[in-house]
Amino acid sequence: MAVLVVGSVALDTVETPFGKVTDALGGSAVYFALAASLYTPVALVGVVGEDFPARYLEWLRQRPIDLRGLQVRPGRTFRWVGWYDYDLNHAHTLETHLNVFADFQPDLPADYRRARFVFLANIDPDLQLRVLDQVERPELVVVDSMNYWIAHKRAALTRVLERADIVTLNEAEVREYAQHPVLLTAARRILALGPRALVVKKGEYGCVLFANDHYFVAPAYPLEEVRDPTGAGDSFAGGMLGYLATCPRVTMAALRRALVHGSVVASFTCEAFSVERLLTLDRAAIAARYREFREFTSFETGEENGD
Amino acid sequence: MAVLVVGSVALDTVETPFGKVTDALGGSAVYFALAASLYTPVALVGVVGEDFPARYLEWLRQRPIDLRGLQVRPGRTFRWVGWYDYDLNHAHTLETHLNVFADFQPDLPADYRRARFVFLANIDPDLQLRVLDQVERPELVVVDSMNYWIAHKRAALTRVLERADIVTLNEAEVREYAQHPVLLTAARRILALGPRALVVKKGEYGCVLFANDHYFVAPAYPLEEVRDPTGAGDSFAGGMLGYLATCPRVTMAALRRALVHGSVVASFTCEAFSVERLLTLDRAAIAARYREFREFTSFETGEENGD
Repeated sequence: MAVLVVGSVALDTVETPFGKVTDALGGSAVYFALAASLYTPVALVGVVGEDFPARYLEWLRQRPIDLRGLQVRPGRTFRWVGWYDYDLNHAHTLETHLNVFADFQPDLPADYRRARFVFLANIDPDLQLRVLDQVERPELVVVDSMNYWIAHKRAALTRVLERADIVTLNEAEVREYAQHPVLLTAARRILALGPRALVVKKGEYGCVLFANDHYFVAPAYPLEEVRDPTGAGDSFAGGMLGYLATCPRVTMAALRRALVHGSVVASFTCEAFSVERLLTLDRAAIAARYREFREFTSFETGEENGD
Repeated sequence: MAVLVVGSVALDTVETPFGKVTDALGGSAVYFALAASLYTPVALVGVVGEDFPARYLEWLRQRPIDLRGLQVRPGRTFRWVGWYDYDLNHAHTLETHLNVFADFQPDLPADYRRARFVFLANIDPDLQLRVLDQVERPELVVVDSMNYWIAHKRAALTRVLERADIVTLNEAEVREYAQHPVLLTAARRILALGPRALVVKKGEYGCVLFANDHYFVAPAYPLEEVRDPTGAGDSFAGGMLGYLATCPRVTMAALRRALVHGSVVASFTCEAFSVERLLTLDRAAIAARYREFREFTSFETGEENGD
């Protein structure tokens, strides 16, 4: 059991300036699992309703994704309806129908409890705590959250952050949780709770890694066409944790490379609607884009000599 | 004659959440010259009124900055009054008094015309063209501009861009000039006019270099305290061109390193009001921060082995 993810499995209806999809496969656990499973086996815990299309399950089963933890409940699957304007960094939510997700209780099959890595996607922090109470000494717990939980369940979220090894949040969430406008100061306040590292996601501006004596910046891959950024953050986490699962130890050097893997996978996610690009993605395409990343961020190994 | 700059010399009144200064030394040519003169001699062309404080001239004269091109005219010096809120990426202008700058005609002393590098700071593109008509085959012409000229003097600005080797603009200006929301596409349209390279300034998100077959990203140096970002863009250009003047040839590899030098110098500028930090800055402090830059952007030369 390499990587366990607990999160949402959703049917997304999304409109961007470049098109629209209806009831497309989505959800944080799905994006994460499709990304991480390019590197390592993944176990998924989530819930769907009886209306969940069988073909979506087939798509997941084509990868090393263990679905024994995916509950099927009477009722309808969680649905999200949203849109983006040309500022593709910001999703606008039109409708959220929790449906079967409203009563979701993550219960882990016995062998899932010994997962080496755990990703707690953005769900109610009380549920995240429930998962943490079930797992047995994972090597790495990575936690994501969002502004809603910062505002409405701050105490529970704080308990989750205290038990996390790595926290992933976007820029505004870091500032909001820490109640400080300067990112460096805000990051320090979150690290003071206990996590080894904080990964700040900045959308088209890339991501930043903060650790106690460590700082690393990775830009986003420059895309000519961002068709649908839905799932970028979760597939980023999937690429990051998937890569780490292939490393013998989670060192800071490995974590830097993992952030670049996450950025590469997220860039592919944004190129098509829903999980479309993730389904056809392979490690060779990731490796090629990783090499491009190295090329456009280095400034001491120029192609030319003499200056 | 290494580097020539033509731009504004101003008295700035600036308020930020961290304090306020009144009639402080400012202006694009001043910030550029103080930055570039840390690397190489600079010749400055601009205009001030009779009220310009003599001590400000002394500050400039402590550096290898040739002021024979600085005209002193009857009347008051150009003044800018502005403020920033906590989003320090955006200046809000309260007042602009052109004063003697309204009739500024850049006329170059004879030996200035043979400058190796020319920086045309953000002034009326008709004046930028007037400078270009006076210089004799400079190795590199770097041009800055702003949204006002894009909106009001587009034809003249286009003629300037056609004659530039490197264009520096911020993100919104690139999109506005090219009339395209995607930065990559917008950048390509500007490169199609003729410049070898486009440097896009993104404030706290760093900068990007576009050339025909080349792409490079540098983050901004992470600052805990941004007290006053005024002059960041011009001191960025000064660090960039100053460094390039120390290179035997302007290769793409040299240009990458030059962007990092520009970012480093700009980060110091933001740490204090007006030119305060630039006045005490030295190459050793720049070199130390340059090494930090290398450290926090590299992901293939980790401190650890074994993974």
